[in-house]
Amino acid sequence: MARPTPLSGFPEWLPEGRVVEQAVLDTLRRTFELHGFAGIETRAVEPLDQLLRKGETSKEVYVLRRLQAEDEGADSGLGLHFDLTVPFARYVLEHSGKLHFPFRRYQIQKVWRGERPQDGRFREFYQADIDVVGDGELAFHHEVEVAVVVAAGFAALGELGVPSARLLVNNRALAEGLYRGLGLEDVEAVLRCIDKLAKIGPEATAELLGTEAGASAEQAAACLELAGISAGEGAALRSAVEEVAARRGIAEEPFREGLERLAELVDAVNARVPGVASADLSIARGLDYYTGSVFETVLEGHEDLGSICSGGRYDALASDGSRSYPGVGLSFGVSRIVSRLLGAGLVSATRSVPSAVLVAVTDEETRAASEAVASALRSRGIPCEVAPSAAKFGKQIRHADRRGIPFVWFCGAGEDGSDQVKDIRSGEQLAADAGEWSPPSEDLWPRTVRA
Amino acid sequence: MARPTPLSGFPEWLPEGRVVEQAVLDTLRRTFELHGFAGIETRAVEPLDQLLRKGETSKEVYVLRRLQAEDEGADSGLGLHFDLTVPFARYVLEHSGKLHFPFRRYQIQKVWRGERPQDGRFREFYQADIDVVGDGELAFHHEVEVAVVVAAGFAALGELGVPSARLLVNNRALAEGLYRGLGLEDVEAVLRCIDKLAKIGPEATAELLGTEAGASAEQAAACLELAGISAGEGAALRSAVEEVAARRGIAEEPFREGLERLAELVDAVNARVPGVASADLSIARGLDYYTGSVFETVLEGHEDLGSICSGGRYDALASDGSRSYPGVGLSFGVSRIVSRLLGAGLVSATRSVPSAVLVAVTDEETRAASEAVASALRSRGIPCEVAPSAAKFGKQIRHADRRGIPFVWFCGAGEDGSDQVKDIRSGEQLAADAGEWSPPSEDLWPRTVRA
Repeated sequence: MARPTPLSGFPEWLPEGRVVEQAVLDTLRRTFELHGFAGIETRAVEPLDQLLRKGETSKEVYVLRRLQAEDEGADSGLGLHFDLTVPFARYVLEHSGKLHFPFRRYQIQKVWRGERPQDGRFREFYQADIDVVGDGELAFHHEVEVAVVVAAGFAALGELGVPSARLLVNNRALAEGLYRGLGLEDVEAVLRCIDKLAKIGPEATAELLGTEAGASAEQAAACLELAGISAGEGAALRSAVEEVAARRGIAEEPFREGLERLAELVDAVNARVPGVASADLSIARGLDYYTGSVFETVLEGHEDLGSICSGGRYDALASDGSRSYPGVGLSFGVSRIVSRLLGAGLVSATRSVPSAVLVAVTDEETRAASEAVASALRSRGIPCEVAPSAAKFGKQIRHADRRGIPFVWFCGAGEDGSDQVKDIRSGEQLAADAGEWSPPSEDLWPRTVRA
Repeated sequence: MARPTPLSGFPEWLPEGRVVEQAVLDTLRRTFELHGFAGIETRAVEPLDQLLRKGETSKEVYVLRRLQAEDEGADSGLGLHFDLTVPFARYVLEHSGKLHFPFRRYQIQKVWRGERPQDGRFREFYQADIDVVGDGELAFHHEVEVAVVVAAGFAALGELGVPSARLLVNNRALAEGLYRGLGLEDVEAVLRCIDKLAKIGPEATAELLGTEAGASAEQAAACLELAGISAGEGAALRSAVEEVAARRGIAEEPFREGLERLAELVDAVNARVPGVASADLSIARGLDYYTGSVFETVLEGHEDLGSICSGGRYDALASDGSRSYPGVGLSFGVSRIVSRLLGAGLVSATRSVPSAVLVAVTDEETRAASEAVASALRSRGIPCEVAPSAAKFGKQIRHADRRGIPFVWFCGAGEDGSDQVKDIRSGEQLAADAGEWSPPSEDLWPRTVRA
């Protein structure tokens, strides 16, 4: 067959790139687990009626059909999930009798959307979600908790070379209190307009507020003034909001609880990861089903990527008629992050294979001796491989070098017949015993480093 | 919405079950990486023409259609992959210029088949594959290598409570030499008949050999005699084959190389993991494209599951006309193994959440103190969670107990105001400092244990 070509929107990495992706996935998993979140996986498919409950996303769904399904209708009635929230809501309802609430779970899986591919936007991509879901009720401190976990996740990713993240937070109750206080009843319309602010600018947004939300010029100006509030500390947030509210004649009571929660959340997150979180009243995402905190995250210097971790509080993640399950959660756009890391050359892998050591083969008759060395190293947790052929040692060293393997092991190379190991970066070659020698810990496994 | 019901053939686990599945996946990944295999992932979809190159599996493919694809034909021309070999072959061709050969990779992903679900047979399931692929040539020792890795994988899985595995090996060159030596030219037909032996018994197989492979009664008897050969050591295999061959008048030369390779492989694998491998001349799987070693694996006491790890050597994993890429590999049926482990109650998880510690909350005003303890524990790699409410301590202990969390931490509970930690299994409660205390290592993370 001819050489295949890539499919647009379905990213795939070479082994070095996969080392980076795997490091990101492992780092998030470890962060989630350290915070006590249980890992689950759901099947990749859901019944179409589940996937289409929110009409707006219906065009993105991939429907499955068995190729030779003569005995049934053309479609299987199943589609690939386009996020991890819809399947999680179904999982909670299906297994509610066997789960312990509040249920704290993480879920790292591929999702599929039949959208037009763009930079950072794929048809198949990894999401990494955390959610806390309650049975009937869910305390506010869980909204703080998920934000802290996300901040800890980005702090850990920073050690891999991922740029700093800024977590931008708003609160639906605060927004509602403020906009109603200005005399605007259609809060969702206001938020839809505010959502466009970054794209279309203040003048066009003011005009839109007039036509879409019925705002007077003065109301529109007040909305823009509020949306411009951003603060990295609770105290600064309080005084900024109170000053505008007093000047614009907005009563305090309706927005007070939302303001306090937003201030508390920002301070709590920054206490754990200093400077990572800001209150930002222009954040308006999907506020039609969020009911408390809402989150977006941008990578510093990579704001063009858009939000790479978003979510919020919803009072009805799932409901079975008699019981309702409120939740709060965020979703990391792993593929969007990884594709930027690799595409912009921000990080690289220290090698393309797990092996820390290539055990050289002197001749095919003594391959078993090389295998025995490899076995001894592996039994002590040292990843290694045996050379594929008894080529000249120079060629075996090139085999290691091309893959980034730092050490080459030579059986019986010492004058006294002892083994020797060579660091092919420095050229240093020393006597070594496979039962005792270890590589420096930073060489044990492939790592992701700033490029 | 009403409580959803499971979809047949799409297995999903509760958090405890996912701990077991994750342990199996982590164990295989670690084994593969210790042996220097590089991890890759391929997209879930392939062009239909790629998936349908082998006609026999075409009915199993799920085809994708974008739900609202008005601008293109009904189907996207893409289907979900039904194994990891077809995508790997495509990956090798697509990226051949950027890979280093021999290329040793592992790949752990879900695959999909629109088959009728049965016990141990799913529509969505995990496979874990290893393959070594060469550019133009691939030495025999890689056939030994992949078998050793698989044996090491099952040895490691045994520590989780997976029953012992038996790796059954045959060699295509040996089979071909023997059956041709009997005067049977249509070796593939013979092997298709032998493949049915375990199911239909020797008499029906003999009859089939006559009608399908043109065997005389004597030739059929000889085939059955050969297929009955099984040996756990190279020497025993050699003498058994040579004895039958001599008695049946089969010339040695055509089968000698295959016999030596099979004997060498079985001895090499057993030298690493004693007793795990047997030569078994009844193993005949997919011999139409395998050209050297072929493998099946059964779990002892669970032979009804069928093979849970299969593969072999093929001289053309991929070919682009000018170059051909021979390979050898095996595929673990992870979901088949995990579903038996859970379904038969062979293993269980020590807890359903990662947390080793629940940090109790005395009252909501001091939640921050409990959070600080949790932070200190996490910074030393100890997974923990903070109680969701300041309920009575008895209720908080029940919260831990229901999830299997072994330790509950009480802030300032000592007479001197120091913290205390309680092992809720023994009831023992001791003074502890969050900057120093660690749980016993066997309690640090959830483990999988024999039930």
